[in-house]
Amino acid sequence: MQGQAQQQAYDRGITIFSPDGRLYQVEYAREAVKRGTASIGVRTSEGVVLAADKRSRSPLMEPTSVEKIHKADDHIGIASAGHVADARQLIDFARRQAQVNRLRYGEPIGIETLTKTITDHIQQYTQVGGARPFGVALLIGGIENGTPRLYETDPSGTPYEWKAVSIGADRGDLQDYLEENYREDLTLDEGIGLALRAIASTNDDELDAGGVDVGTVSGETEAFVELTNDEISEYIAENDLEPSEDEDEGGDETAE
Amino acid sequence: MQGQAQQQAYDRGITIFSPDGRLYQVEYAREAVKRGTASIGVRTSEGVVLAADKRSRSPLMEPTSVEKIHKADDHIGIASAGHVADARQLIDFARRQAQVNRLRYGEPIGIETLTKTITDHIQQYTQVGGARPFGVALLIGGIENGTPRLYETDPSGTPYEWKAVSIGADRGDLQDYLEENYREDLTLDEGIGLALRAIASTNDDELDAGGVDVGTVSGETEAFVELTNDEISEYIAENDLEPSEDEDEGGDETAE
Amino acid sequence: MQGQAQQQAYDRGITIFSPDGRLYQVEYAREAVKRGTASIGVRTSEGVVLAADKRSRSPLMEPTSVEKIHKADDHIGIASAGHVADARQLIDFARRQAQVNRLRYGEPIGIETLTKTITDHIQQYTQVGGARPFGVALLIGGIENGTPRLYETDPSGTPYEWKAVSIGADRGDLQDYLEENYREDLTLDEGIGLALRAIASTNDDELDAGGVDVGTVSGETEAFVELTNDEISEYIAENDLEPSEDEDEGGDETAE
Amino acid sequence: MQGQAQQQAYDRGITIFSPDGRLYQVEYAREAVKRGTASIGVRTSEGVVLAADKRSRSPLMEPTSVEKIHKADDHIGIASAGHVADARQLIDFARRQAQVNRLRYGEPIGIETLTKTITDHIQQYTQVGGARPFGVALLIGGIENGTPRLYETDPSGTPYEWKAVSIGADRGDLQDYLEENYREDLTLDEGIGLALRAIASTNDDELDAGGVDVGTVSGETEAFVELTNDEISEYIAENDLEPSEDEDEGGDETAE
Amino acid sequence: MQGQAQQQAYDRGITIFSPDGRLYQVEYAREAVKRGTASIGVRTSEGVVLAADKRSRSPLMEPTSVEKIHKADDHIGIASAGHVADARQLIDFARRQAQVNRLRYGEPIGIETLTKTITDHIQQYTQVGGARPFGVALLIGGIENGTPRLYETDPSGTPYEWKAVSIGADRGDLQDYLEENYREDLTLDEGIGLALRAIASTNDDELDAGGVDVGTVSGETEAFVELTNDEISEYIAENDLEPSEDEDEGGDETAE
Amino acid sequence: MQGQAQQQAYDRGITIFSPDGRLYQVEYAREAVKRGTASIGVRTSEGVVLAADKRSRSPLMEPTSVEKIHKADDHIGIASAGHVADARQLIDFARRQAQVNRLRYGEPIGIETLTKTITDHIQQYTQVGGARPFGVALLIGGIENGTPRLYETDPSGTPYEWKAVSIGADRGDLQDYLEENYREDLTLDEGIGLALRAIASTNDDELDAGGVDVGTVSGETEAFVELTNDEISEYIAENDLEPSEDEDEGGDETAE
Amino acid sequence: MQGQAQQQAYDRGITIFSPDGRLYQVEYAREAVKRGTASIGVRTSEGVVLAADKRSRSPLMEPTSVEKIHKADDHIGIASAGHVADARQLIDFARRQAQVNRLRYGEPIGIETLTKTITDHIQQYTQVGGARPFGVALLIGGIENGTPRLYETDPSGTPYEWKAVSIGADRGDLQDYLEENYREDLTLDEGIGLALRAIASTNDDELDAGGVDVGTVSGETEAFVELTNDEISEYIAENDLEPSEDEDEGGDETAE
Repeated sequence: MQGQAQQQAYDRGITIFSPDGRLYQVEYAREAVKRGTASIGVRTSEGVVLAADKRSRSPLMEPTSVEKIHKADDHIGIASAGHVADARQLIDFARRQAQVNRLRYGEPIGIETLTKTITDHIQQYTQVGGARPFGVALLIGGIENGTPRLYETDPSGTPYEWKAVSIGADRGDLQDYLEENYREDLTLDEGIGLALRAIASTNDDELDAGGVDVGTVSGETEAFVELTNDEISEYIAENDLEPSEDEDEGGDETAE
Repeated sequence: MQGQAQQQAYDRGITIFSPDGRLYQVEYAREAVKRGTASIGVRTSEGVVLAADKRSRSPLMEPTSVEKIHKADDHIGIASAGHVADARQLIDFARRQAQVNRLRYGEPIGIETLTKTITDHIQQYTQVGGARPFGVALLIGGIENGTPRLYETDPSGTPYEWKAVSIGADRGDLQDYLEENYREDLTLDEGIGLALRAIASTNDDELDAGGVDVGTVSGETEAFVELTNDEISEYIAENDLEPSEDEDEGGDETAE
Repeated sequence: MQGQAQQQAYDRGITIFSPDGRLYQVEYAREAVKRGTASIGVRTSEGVVLAADKRSRSPLMEPTSVEKIHKADDHIGIASAGHVADARQLIDFARRQAQVNRLRYGEPIGIETLTKTITDHIQQYTQVGGARPFGVALLIGGIENGTPRLYETDPSGTPYEWKAVSIGADRGDLQDYLEENYREDLTLDEGIGLALRAIASTNDDELDAGGVDVGTVSGETEAFVELTNDEISEYIAENDLEPSEDEDEGGDETAE
Repeated sequence: MQGQAQQQAYDRGITIFSPDGRLYQVEYAREAVKRGTASIGVRTSEGVVLAADKRSRSPLMEPTSVEKIHKADDHIGIASAGHVADARQLIDFARRQAQVNRLRYGEPIGIETLTKTITDHIQQYTQVGGARPFGVALLIGGIENGTPRLYETDPSGTPYEWKAVSIGADRGDLQDYLEENYREDLTLDEGIGLALRAIASTNDDELDAGGVDVGTVSGETEAFVELTNDEISEYIAENDLEPSEDEDEGGDETAE
Repeated sequence: MQGQAQQQAYDRGITIFSPDGRLYQVEYAREAVKRGTASIGVRTSEGVVLAADKRSRSPLMEPTSVEKIHKADDHIGIASAGHVADARQLIDFARRQAQVNRLRYGEPIGIETLTKTITDHIQQYTQVGGARPFGVALLIGGIENGTPRLYETDPSGTPYEWKAVSIGADRGDLQDYLEENYREDLTLDEGIGLALRAIASTNDDELDAGGVDVGTVSGETEAFVELTNDEISEYIAENDLEPSEDEDEGGDETAE
Repeated sequence: MQGQAQQQAYDRGITIFSPDGRLYQVEYAREAVKRGTASIGVRTSEGVVLAADKRSRSPLMEPTSVEKIHKADDHIGIASAGHVADARQLIDFARRQAQVNRLRYGEPIGIETLTKTITDHIQQYTQVGGARPFGVALLIGGIENGTPRLYETDPSGTPYEWKAVSIGADRGDLQDYLEENYREDLTLDEGIGLALRAIASTNDDELDAGGVDVGTVSGETEAFVELTNDEISEYIAENDLEPSEDEDEGGDETAE
Repeated sequence: MQGQAQQQAYDRGITIFSPDGRLYQVEYAREAVKRGTASIGVRTSEGVVLAADKRSRSPLMEPTSVEKIHKADDHIGIASAGHVADARQLIDFARRQAQVNRLRYGEPIGIETLTKTITDHIQQYTQVGGARPFGVALLIGGIENGTPRLYETDPSGTPYEWKAVSIGADRGDLQDYLEENYREDLTLDEGIGLALRAIASTNDDELDAGGVDVGTVSGETEAFVELTNDEISEYIAENDLEPSEDEDEGGDETAE
């Protein structure tokens, strides 16, 4: 109870340290990320795979309206988890940065460069007053000089580079699953399969093509591509993940 | 009681996260939406239907003065639920965006584009300090490249695309009603009937032409049209929804 | 008591939602309106009537100094109830808008247009921090394209159109009185009589010419006119409302 | 005690409404006015009289240094009661407005126009945050088109027109005295006598020429004139108000 | 104790009224003035005398470093009491105003004009948020059109004109002393003697030349002059105020 | 418990002193530094060594993504400990300052000059409101006029020059280790060995090449160089620090 | 305990007065000064001596990195005590002011002029909101027109001129020591000896050349000079202050 009272004191001040050197608002923003359904990134030898769990909440909602995989530039895809409206702000920011880079230097923006421009932007919202942190994490995947790269941004504004990673709900279980099943020499196809099986692993090993989005950037084409429902269905079938019945609602209303 | 005390701590700080990653002011703004009478959107094979429950509070009030269906552009209508004055701000914002699009690109704004411009605007009021969130939800319906589209915006700034949806009071019951009765191959006429029956379903299956507004954007004309009282009366009669007596006041004074 | 404590929490934050989706500061501003003496608007077949109860507080105060009926433009009158100094701000705002309209478009401003410009202005004070809401309601009456129009604005910034309406003290009783006695085919003279009898109804059916202001905009002249004391006395006599003795002080010092 | 706690909540927020629609800071500013010694205005058939009780606190203080009657323009005098430093701000504001009017329109400013410009200025300090209300009331007297006019401004920014009025300490008693003894056909001389007797009435019917300031604007000269000590002594003698001994200190140190 | 709690509520809000119409921050700033050692002003028939008690705290401190008498312009001296650093701000402000007057109008600034420019500046710090009031009082003495004038400013921004006055510590006793011993026909020499004896009266009738500053503006020369230590010693001897032993430290560290 | 309550009072106000003259937010920011894994700087006779403990948290995370050693300019390296996102801000600031110096003066920036520009920047965040202090410490090492220099910055904005120093976790033990083992005549190779053995000393004297970053600026080349994993492995082997098994996770998620 | 609660109320509001007229934040900033090790200034007949106790905390820290004596201009030195990072801000401010004076007037800035420019700058941080006061005191020594001058600035922004003075830890004892041993006819050499013996007096009469900084401005050269370690050692030897063993750590980490 005392701990609770103490914590409350730090809730109200957005950008201040607690006596043990923590930023509570940033940690609470991480909770907003956890409230969203999971997104997964897998770096394979042939390219990067982004997959997002977006189990539709209502049969009347357009499944495409729950956007968790976004094209940031020709060669870059971004998957998000957490507060949807915040994600849109960062995606827009990323797209503008990518465009500016093409205009200014006549070449596609580097994956690491884009990631760090975004995390610097996020950091400002954790240090300067008058706004709250972003309640969203991103996976930024693309090809840079022919090499697949996969980055994560978190609400503190820290960039991380990964071979395979999940953000959002069930991160602990999903990360364990990825560690057990990841191999650096995966093909892009195998990467898609790994991502889908990981998502299904938190759902009785079942998956519905409408309940998941998949995007890839292959090293060959250097182009971000979103898979069609039919393509996803094929992968689901190949991986024996067909659901036996409809999904329930999942996650928070504004956090995907 | 403790929970209550804790919650209060987050009421005062507009744009901060709670320890479990929620934004209370946004959730309270959703309550303001629920205090308004319902609005319903139905996407049919022939166009989009918007209908709004506006049961007049006083026989001396002009029924037309309670505006819940608005024309945003020639090809786009918007229905609102919640804080009326806030709704007007967003409608004005939408109209300006639509005009700017025509001036800048010489063509009508896309329904999705308009929706996301509005939700980005709404999001700003949930992250940057010095203002409260918008206490209103919108249904944005129109024709884009010949195809009917129907979107919802909520106080968090999240955009959703729907086949049929309700905002405002009784969303749970109305959404159930729509799920049971919606078919994708509805004609525009059938869509109007479905919307009116849904609204009536929360009111002993009775409806008064003066107590409901209906607007449509048909795929043929690509034009937003508001139905006259006579036209609405005809639909009410066709659907056996005539009231046996006058309506009481309903809803909050500033929330429709 | 708990409820009270909870309410206090929302008093201090001007522009935030309560857990049930209400804006307390706006509701308290409505109380400021109720503290003012009543104003009444009646839309007749021949024009609009505005009447205001302004029972003078002291025999030494100039009755004309308590202004509750104002000319906004040649064809528009405005009656107010609530915080007097706030009313003056909105009346000035209305006059500037009307002038700008004449300068810009060479024609008188529409009644609905003016009303909504005012309510949008009022809304800003309920959403953006750094100021309190306006503690005043207005009745805006005038002729638009030959048709009498009567609007109300409230502290939330919501516009309403009415056939007959009262703002300020005793709204419940006065509205009942109007509902019982209003007819759409009233002449302007009958409208004046109805307004005066309504005001008198809350005062033992007595009225003093110095204690009431009356303004009209007739459809014929399209001109706002304030009645002289003699004219008002005639109407009082015609309606058998002469007082038997002097009025006491009434209402709040700064709320009319 | 509960009432007190509740009140405290509203003290801290300058520009917010209490649940019963009151603005406590404005009401407290009125208390600051009451802490000042009284000023009195009397409109006579021949002009306006302003008189101010300024009982000097120390024999070493220059009586003229306690300024309560000010010249705003050739034809306008202003008497104040309350916070002295605040009064000076408003007097300076009034003088600038009067000068601007002469420069812009080549004619003296109207008394009502000046009053309302001042009250609009005062109102801003009650609605917009970042400052406290003015803790002072003014009496503005002058000749407009040959007619004497007398206005009061209060801390809420409400303008009132009066035949005779007092501001500051003992308003209740003084207003009663004025109501009993005022006649519209008073000469300017009789008006001065009435004002002095009123002030003396709260002080055992005694008055010292050094303890009171008197200014007049006669309809004939249309010029604001301050009476000399000798002239005031004559009026005191004529009205049998000579003191039998020296006055004590009175009022608040910064409120006159 | 309740009174204390209530008072605390007003401490935090700099520029707000208490329920009884007081501005606590201004009253606390007056306490800062009282913490400073006294300054005294005496207006004689031949000019103005300013004297300041500055009993040095340490034998190693340069007595001249404790500045309490300042030259504002050729014909104006200013004595201060209270927060030293605040005094410097106002003295600088006064000097700039005096210079601007000479540049703009080619003549020395009037004593009353300068005083009121300073008090208007002080008032702003009591009404507008974001800063605290000035914790200092000033005595402004000089010759205007051949006549000696002596003004006081206090933390509320109120100007007072005096024949003789003290600010800072022991004001009650000193003012009594001055009232008993002041005569309007004092010579400048007698005025200096009165000021020194007054200061000595609060210190066992003893005074040290290093512990007091004296400045004069004589009507003949119209020039501000600071007395040398030798001159002060002579006056001390003439008035039998030689100390028998050294002074102790006195007053607050930053308040003189 | 009382102490705790008192401390809380200072947590909320970012830039204020406690009664004993401390700035709690700065002290809490130092705790954020301690939450990060250690970085070590060693100044040798031949150049400067920077080493950072970055024990990877997950086998799937790219070890290079945890950046703790940064190149600020050709001749300057910076090691950080604490909040990663904050470190990035300061590193960017340092790089811009170095570039500006080359552009403006045509020569490399001095190590002391760069350090003090950074600490002045950090100090601003501890004095001016509206932001929190930086939760990071830096070690800035380089060659200036042929001489190796090693500086530390802390969250208060104080610069320190060191012969050998550690920041982050285990500073007490590491500093003791360095004091016991440092010699001014170390070669660059010996300096690298000392740094690695120091880091290993807090970890059972074991180290993994992937779990540590090493950078040097030799006096000969005046160039900042990061060691490859192979080079680090060699040093680890030479110093008998090979780990017997994998490292666990260490430190805070956003603090390195 | 009550006193403590009351004090807390004033901690949070940076720039407000307490009921007894004190500025707590300024007093707490003085505590920050006391947390720093002492600096001493001695004005001799031949020039000014500045000496600073800087007992190094760690054998690995460069003694020169703890800067407590700074050159502000050719003829001015400044010693500081308190918050190191704050001191740097004021030193930079002083250097800019000195440079501006040379550019603008072509001559070196006066010692008093520079001191008062600095104290006016410090005062602003105690009156205007949005920042905390400076937690540092300065001794400013130099030659002005051939005469040695020695000034002190404190966190309130008050300037003092001294013959000999100490700031920082042990001010009470050190000031007593100086009062007992100071003579106005000291030579510069004797002044250095006095300063060193004073510092040693708080440390068992022992001193280490690396633990103290000494700077002088002689009247002959009018140039600020810092003594080398060897020179200091000689003075220590001459004054019999050689330490028998190493010093422990002393003072606060960021306060010197």
